[in-house]
Amino acid sequence: MNFCPNSWNKLFTLLSKTRGLVGLGLASSSSAAAASLSSSASASASKVATTASYSSTSTSSAMDEIRTLKTKLCIIGSGPAAHTAAIYAARAELKPILFEGWMANDIAPGGQLTTTSDVENFPGFPEGIHGIELMDRCRNQSLRFGTQIFTETVSKVDFSAKPFKVFSDSKTVEADSVIVSTGAVAKRLIFTGSGEAPEGFWNRGISACAVCDGAAPIFRNKPLAVLGGGDSAMEEANFLTKYGSVVYIIHRRDTFRASKIMQNRAMSNPKIKVIWNSVVVEACGDGDNRKVLGGLKVKNLVSGEVSDLKVSGLFFAIGHEPATKFLDGQLELDSDGYVVTKPGTSLTSVRGVFAAGDVQDKKYRQAVTAAGTGCMAALDAEHYLQEIGSQED
Amino acid sequence: MNFCPNSWNKLFTLLSKTRGLVGLGLASSSSAAAASLSSSASASASKVATTASYSSTSTSSAMDEIRTLKTKLCIIGSGPAAHTAAIYAARAELKPILFEGWMANDIAPGGQLTTTSDVENFPGFPEGIHGIELMDRCRNQSLRFGTQIFTETVSKVDFSAKPFKVFSDSKTVEADSVIVSTGAVAKRLIFTGSGEAPEGFWNRGISACAVCDGAAPIFRNKPLAVLGGGDSAMEEANFLTKYGSVVYIIHRRDTFRASKIMQNRAMSNPKIKVIWNSVVVEACGDGDNRKVLGGLKVKNLVSGEVSDLKVSGLFFAIGHEPATKFLDGQLELDSDGYVVTKPGTSLTSVRGVFAAGDVQDKKYRQAVTAAGTGCMAALDAEHYLQEIGSQED
Repeated sequence: MNFCPNSWNKLFTLLSKTRGLVGLGLASSSSAAAASLSSSASASASKVATTASYSSTSTSSAMDEIRTLKTKLCIIGSGPAAHTAAIYAARAELKPILFEGWMANDIAPGGQLTTTSDVENFPGFPEGIHGIELMDRCRNQSLRFGTQIFTETVSKVDFSAKPFKVFSDSKTVEADSVIVSTGAVAKRLIFTGSGEAPEGFWNRGISACAVCDGAAPIFRNKPLAVLGGGDSAMEEANFLTKYGSVVYIIHRRDTFRASKIMQNRAMSNPKIKVIWNSVVVEACGDGDNRKVLGGLKVKNLVSGEVSDLKVSGLFFAIGHEPATKFLDGQLELDSDGYVVTKPGTSLTSVRGVFAAGDVQDKKYRQAVTAAGTGCMAALDAEHYLQEIGSQED
Repeated sequence: MNFCPNSWNKLFTLLSKTRGLVGLGLASSSSAAAASLSSSASASASKVATTASYSSTSTSSAMDEIRTLKTKLCIIGSGPAAHTAAIYAARAELKPILFEGWMANDIAPGGQLTTTSDVENFPGFPEGIHGIELMDRCRNQSLRFGTQIFTETVSKVDFSAKPFKVFSDSKTVEADSVIVSTGAVAKRLIFTGSGEAPEGFWNRGISACAVCDGAAPIFRNKPLAVLGGGDSAMEEANFLTKYGSVVYIIHRRDTFRASKIMQNRAMSNPKIKVIWNSVVVEACGDGDNRKVLGGLKVKNLVSGEVSDLKVSGLFFAIGHEPATKFLDGQLELDSDGYVVTKPGTSLTSVRGVFAAGDVQDKKYRQAVTAAGTGCMAALDAEHYLQEIGSQED
């Protein structure tokens, strides 16, 4: 069987790479683009400013000089955590400033949900809602209550003195408190057919979240594959046996690094088969149907042989990368780079700085859990600002 | 000034009392009503059962005998936590059974959101959404993925052996895992005018959540009052000075039990005034306008004198009561009766039993934080069931 009768030209693959994981973290390489967009971000912000006034001083009258703004609360991020924090903070009259970024983490404002299709598990939307629409609605809700949004990426922060400072290419924000909610990005491998439509099968069979997407009809009673060798890969493979006819775990080595208990659980599941020492080199359609994933070309790294594997789903389970590089070590991070919060709160190692969403959560990582922690961060910030008396300013 | 020209007849007050806090916890006194309703709950459940099959054995053929059902996961509750857990669990093919209760805690299925009007801070609804509609949508989402819902109140549980047992008046559910999300109820005082429309001003000036309702236009630049003397009362009074022209704290004693720092913060706020040794005896309209709260009759407990206080808002800050009595000491509770969870997770003191929402949260208590913890509980339960191997049954 040959599932990839026509090899796609390599142009798309190369294009994908430029949007891939290379620029992960809050890249400052897009400064020109960010600067060119900042005027429209400011325009939308001035509209908001009719209901909420902000302190603002320019260091110079020149248009391209750095502007300095003051706020009680600066929120960095654009996903469910950031906007839920903004909704709560804005309703509490904190007049928050939110940096949604400009292709920060190589993702559009709105975060990871903008890379998905329908979201079925966000409570309140029984028919499901498209990820982009959900984030548009959250963003509009932030704006409604007076959040000032800048479409610029934060390049660095200074948490060493108060007020805290948050820098983009065109602005410096002085903030009494900060919420970090920059998210994490699921790692994806780049190979022919791994990208977006129409050339690739991302969201049309390829996913990085079994919990989110596993229940989709296209996966029911079909062969599926999981890529990875850690605890997540084992758990997701087990999880996917609820839906798939068989679940392959494709792993580039001949041993897993997953814990023994999770390995045993996976290996003893009759629906799970392991393909050792192998990598995916191409994703293909199902014969003439190029709308959904139909199979993979899998290369054995020992023999060099490439074989066809018929699957309707491929799930990356090779980890996530939290967007914490711009913090430059100013908050305590764990060994995987996630912001450490006091469990059950949004408190970080710096008093007055809070973290919410996937940037501090490597366990649950769902839109609604992120939203919940965004709310917590806003209430924690409000409480902190009451304590330090910032409210009366 | 007399804000209460016509004293309402006492009938409504008496009626309110029967719906008040007397029956808090999961009352078993409504067994007849529960039994009469169970048929419609079953009818709706059988409709669901077309997409999800459940083990069910009757101990007898008699219609009124106790039925025993088996499930991997039983969810107790009907608010955002319970339904978010159900959405995740049902999508994960756990075929959950959910007891939404029948006027459990004296509140309709849907929980505290059914006692509010518009919810402005649940992310995804930029124009706001009525609390009842939001919960209807969440419930429909649970049903869509195959949750079996019973409109019966859980009277007791047995967590001493596995499978766990959950009892209502007409059913026993044997469950491999359980999620407790029965919520907590804001304490409300009962006096003339404190109840629902048309006689009372509940939701028309009287509230039990400053964070939720303080930003409403009816409170802007108006005199407001907070009832209570603890940390919550101090924090809510401070919070409300963002909106109100003046905020009275009405307290029945001559000292607060709040912490010194929160007392000082409140007492040094020029917009806060304290009315000591006093209780509210009546809520009244604003002159001829009986649609919104206009004032209170406040009784000084030392002098016995009753005086008029012009306010547009009254916020109860006298604590919450978690619905944990039915647990009968089988889960570790804190000194206020809340279920103790391992911080940052939904794990309780009994392995395989999880808790989510306000029943385990006395700090944040928002719909979206409850929903977030509901998701966590479903994922924790899924992980637990994988570990014990229940999935393969």
